[in-house]
Amino acid sequence: MNSVEHLFEPQKVILIGSSKIREKVGMTSPQLFESVVCNMKKCFKGKIIVVDLSKKTLSNFEEEKPELGVIMLPPEMSIQQAEKCATAGVKALVLITGGFKNHQRQRLRQMTEDHGIRILGPNTIMGVINTANGLNTTFEKDTMPTKGDIAVISQSGGVGAYLLDWTCSCNIGISKFAFMGDKIDVNDVDLLEYLSKDPRTRVICLYMEGIENGRKFIETARKVVRKKPVLAVKGGVTREAANRALSHTASIAGTDEVFDAGLKKAGVIRTEDLEELLNSAVALSKQPTLKGDDIAIVSNVGGPAILAADAVAKNGLRLATLSEATKRRIETRYPGIDASNPIDIIADARAERYTMVLRHVLEDPNVDGVMVINMLKSTFFEPEDALTIVKAAKEYPKKPIVDVPAGGEDFNLVYKVLEKSNIPLYNLPEKAAKALKALRLYAKIVEKWDKKSEPRAP
Amino acid sequence: MNSVEHLFEPQKVILIGSSKIREKVGMTSPQLFESVVCNMKKCFKGKIIVVDLSKKTLSNFEEEKPELGVIMLPPEMSIQQAEKCATAGVKALVLITGGFKNHQRQRLRQMTEDHGIRILGPNTIMGVINTANGLNTTFEKDTMPTKGDIAVISQSGGVGAYLLDWTCSCNIGISKFAFMGDKIDVNDVDLLEYLSKDPRTRVICLYMEGIENGRKFIETARKVVRKKPVLAVKGGVTREAANRALSHTASIAGTDEVFDAGLKKAGVIRTEDLEELLNSAVALSKQPTLKGDDIAIVSNVGGPAILAADAVAKNGLRLATLSEATKRRIETRYPGIDASNPIDIIADARAERYTMVLRHVLEDPNVDGVMVINMLKSTFFEPEDALTIVKAAKEYPKKPIVDVPAGGEDFNLVYKVLEKSNIPLYNLPEKAAKALKALRLYAKIVEKWDKKSEPRAP
Repeated sequence: MNSVEHLFEPQKVILIGSSKIREKVGMTSPQLFESVVCNMKKCFKGKIIVVDLSKKTLSNFEEEKPELGVIMLPPEMSIQQAEKCATAGVKALVLITGGFKNHQRQRLRQMTEDHGIRILGPNTIMGVINTANGLNTTFEKDTMPTKGDIAVISQSGGVGAYLLDWTCSCNIGISKFAFMGDKIDVNDVDLLEYLSKDPRTRVICLYMEGIENGRKFIETARKVVRKKPVLAVKGGVTREAANRALSHTASIAGTDEVFDAGLKKAGVIRTEDLEELLNSAVALSKQPTLKGDDIAIVSNVGGPAILAADAVAKNGLRLATLSEATKRRIETRYPGIDASNPIDIIADARAERYTMVLRHVLEDPNVDGVMVINMLKSTFFEPEDALTIVKAAKEYPKKPIVDVPAGGEDFNLVYKVLEKSNIPLYNLPEKAAKALKALRLYAKIVEKWDKKSEPRAP
Repeated sequence: MNSVEHLFEPQKVILIGSSKIREKVGMTSPQLFESVVCNMKKCFKGKIIVVDLSKKTLSNFEEEKPELGVIMLPPEMSIQQAEKCATAGVKALVLITGGFKNHQRQRLRQMTEDHGIRILGPNTIMGVINTANGLNTTFEKDTMPTKGDIAVISQSGGVGAYLLDWTCSCNIGISKFAFMGDKIDVNDVDLLEYLSKDPRTRVICLYMEGIENGRKFIETARKVVRKKPVLAVKGGVTREAANRALSHTASIAGTDEVFDAGLKKAGVIRTEDLEELLNSAVALSKQPTLKGDDIAIVSNVGGPAILAADAVAKNGLRLATLSEATKRRIETRYPGIDASNPIDIIADARAERYTMVLRHVLEDPNVDGVMVINMLKSTFFEPEDALTIVKAAKEYPKKPIVDVPAGGEDFNLVYKVLEKSNIPLYNLPEKAAKALKALRLYAKIVEKWDKKSEPRAP
């Protein structure tokens, strides 16, 4: 079998579609074909061969030696073209369109066995993205995420697209996107193995509906998570939704308990929804892990700090008990402030007060990590004041810091100042607490593996 | 005692502060005073009297007869000025600043007893907003929410400000805002009573840290919820946070179980966080209640529909079993679509297909409410196609519809098209499911009250 790296790192790509064929209900259409070609021309740094089947047949391209083929046609035609590619020595295929029947999937499977060609899909809808070489087989114009170190593997095109849209609009840095669809060949295990070796990927996000070979998945994930965190959302956890997953991507969902136990065994961090998935991934890609349970909260408003304290406790963490020395230092410098955790440094706090309090708190051995809250409305805080949090994180690189510039407009104002920094930002204390929980879970996973003294991969 | 309506509906307001005094740590400052004056001049439709104590003393204003005084000074000075106002016949006061000690709070309490004056605060930070008459005692420039029918009562200035910022940036329609602070006089009960009679308020949101008189609160809320829904978030549910709430707004939080039981008894819908609070309020202000548990999901993407199905079940609702007639109608018209719920109407669906499928689904007696999902990325859907959902809601006004234009940028594109419509929009299926849950809970509350055959208020 060929390596799945051809899916992400080809030098030459052949795009096969039609400027005329349109399915009555389905994805094949001239627009889709045109958009993928347009995206690839705009973004891809390698060579592109375009084959419009309504103008010419696919022939004599062997000498061009494309490693990757992208096929955007109805099922039966997709299979014919896939066969031609396989025979001509193409290493990997992305099958965009869906609607394949079981026997058609079987024919594709046979093709991978006969030729060693790797197939992603069918029904990937969006295919693959590699921000490093500009490979982008999606049909969304101007949708290229920022370069970064989070990889996303999604079984569903829709869920992948959701994550893609979210990452694009928040400028969340992405290394690779892979939309798996029906997974007749390339699956989570192949992609995990590939991404674990990818130097550009630091965190892996998974959306999964089912697992074909649970044992193999757990075995692989256990190795991967020692090198980088893997986060997952599972779709089809309720019986009704599970039935639907079967017809959606031909997945057998299995019971949720079995699945959950499997993920735990694998060291994969499960999140409740897609927002928590990305929020946690951002924290893990930007901040050190959380080595203990004790969190300090530093806030310029009282109420949100109380909600933050609740959220910390609800997520299995603790409010740190600050040392007397820390409290004394803060209270001496700022009379009127009660330095009990959560610390309300009062609505007139600006960068200077945040700087001093953060320093004292981060130096306190009783504190493992910090949640900062900086509201703008009802306070004197200005967006640029938030830069002091970046400095604090640099001075104390072993303790994670997350920031909550709570609200709507005001969140965006602070986000603009800090989005390129290493400070993860959340618009609600509850979301920040869940991100801290992910940082804590990953610390525990790494610790457990180390204790078992299996030799850690380099 | 005077009525609390003077807090919201004064003809004349006196603003008392100083252009010189600044607390070392605290809110009193020339900027705050200046900003409140500026906001009031810009927004308020009544008359304003400004008293800058660094230029003149407060005297001879009795004949002006202001009903409301807003005081922005350090504690001791605030009390002095409040006393003058009370003596001069001012009906109600908003005390913006905090830092009051117990004995100072006691003096204010005495004042309300001696003069019948109503006091909101101290420590309200932001005071009150009434979108109907432009009353806005916050010091945030250009922060006037859109007119609408959601009222917000917050014990905490910070939490209130969070909600204010959120509602402003999402154009969520607001009737009144009240920031209660230390609640030495005007409290949740007074405000609930007032808002229940306010014709401009249809839904009431509460952020509370503690309740002084639980029995009275429950009694009042029970009456109010028969006329309009009341939603609440409670801060200080964990022991640590509860301790903090005590020093924050002098609240005794009580155990969470007691509180929860109290809210249930009162018919108040409790939400987990501030985002769910606003999301639920928007649903209740825009859509009919959900008369049964059975939800249909209509989506142009498969994966998010599966997550939606999970979320529906997790929130105590059910996936509706569509009638055979409904399924046949859809599948006959659109070959290739499997009309089992959740219905994946495939990524090439545009307005026409949504219109037809929504009509069939809403006509099905097995369906009580609908969650629509319309992704843009990975589909052919255009933002304007979403207008068909508004039409469907008008045709079938008895069944609630919520919409999930999932994602980041794409959510915003659809939001722009539908924000003024009566369709509540959520960027994640899980959030939409929680909103449906709130619609179901309120239907049950109303039903229960009706069954008890207590005469319903007109």
